[in-house]
Amino acid sequence: MKAQFITVEGGEGVGKSSNIAFILSYLKDKGIDVVSTREPGGTELGEKIRNLLLDAKNKSMVSDTELLLMFAARAQHLEALIKPSLKQGKWVLCDRFTDATFAYQGGGRGIDMHRIEKLETWVQGELRPDLTLVFDLPIEVGLERAGKRSEPDRFELENMEFFKRVRNTYLERARQNPDKYAVINAEPELEEVQQALSRVLEPLTANR
Amino acid sequence: MKAQFITVEGGEGVGKSSNIAFILSYLKDKGIDVVSTREPGGTELGEKIRNLLLDAKNKSMVSDTELLLMFAARAQHLEALIKPSLKQGKWVLCDRFTDATFAYQGGGRGIDMHRIEKLETWVQGELRPDLTLVFDLPIEVGLERAGKRSEPDRFELENMEFFKRVRNTYLERARQNPDKYAVINAEPELEEVQQALSRVLEPLTANR
Repeated sequence: MKAQFITVEGGEGVGKSSNIAFILSYLKDKGIDVVSTREPGGTELGEKIRNLLLDAKNKSMVSDTELLLMFAARAQHLEALIKPSLKQGKWVLCDRFTDATFAYQGGGRGIDMHRIEKLETWVQGELRPDLTLVFDLPIEVGLERAGKRSEPDRFELENMEFFKRVRNTYLERARQNPDKYAVINAEPELEEVQQALSRVLEPLTANR
Repeated sequence: MKAQFITVEGGEGVGKSSNIAFILSYLKDKGIDVVSTREPGGTELGEKIRNLLLDAKNKSMVSDTELLLMFAARAQHLEALIKPSLKQGKWVLCDRFTDATFAYQGGGRGIDMHRIEKLETWVQGELRPDLTLVFDLPIEVGLERAGKRSEPDRFELENMEFFKRVRNTYLERARQNPDKYAVINAEPELEEVQQALSRVLEPLTANR
């Protein structure tokens, strides 16, 4: 099996970090060489762009600018890290990717999905993740978990309706393309979530 | 006459700053309310993006990222400053705009012009400058003039062939759309350049 490009998605507080650590350790146990990265960011320049995006001081940022900055960081990430890694046979595990843009900028901020698709094609050509793991939680549970951690950033300050649209966009995209998406219920205890994850990952790694 | 959107273009050392000061004073003398701005930049966020673009430390920036950052700053500039000013009846004088993207990223870096046109339409819709002033100089003269000033930035470090392609792109775009472009020979003494500028601006302001 060719090197897989796996993305991890989900709203606030769904436990992406813990689950990413689990996935990494699962794949490494199978002898798979994995590069772990994140968006927006993943490169030195991408992290600078990420800082502009997350900085609560940039509250006057218009939605088209936000979207173009996301894809600017993504273009760098693809050329400098993701594509070269896949070419070398390394799997890439990415914390958020273009599904997050559809969910947050499209669903959340209401940018026309077709406009996002145009940029997606402009930047990525035909490249899409091989598998997208969507960690799913009721909004209230996720925000409560996220709220326990630290000061809210610019996105976390958005209201409940925003996060509902984010969640619905993720679920709708998964529903439309079930071969490429797995929705993982993130509400149970971590151990149970990880069992569900293992059932998704097992066939990928068994076919190698 | 409706408020005009005038852009000022040209390669290194063509004397844009002095000529912009002249244009501003010329228009103000005619009682025209003018907003003077620049790209990349023109807004607080746009200036932060400009810093990423010009910082010589970001030498690994891929060309698609450069292009997306340019348009990210432009989207902010259009929504926050250019369109609202024009709507209020103010003229807008902008030091570089999308022609510079075609010249530097297209001609200079070799990004497919059709890809740039796609982003232009994505960001600007139908909006284009009413008049673009292209200050033109032989490359060697321009670089010598620019070199007298300060440390070269990331763009100025590029080689002569790059700047020739930039110049040729500007001239070609002006040739293809003579109603919207005026090429000003920037080689003579400033006073002579300003007389040429006055001849271009006079009909615009006489028709008000």
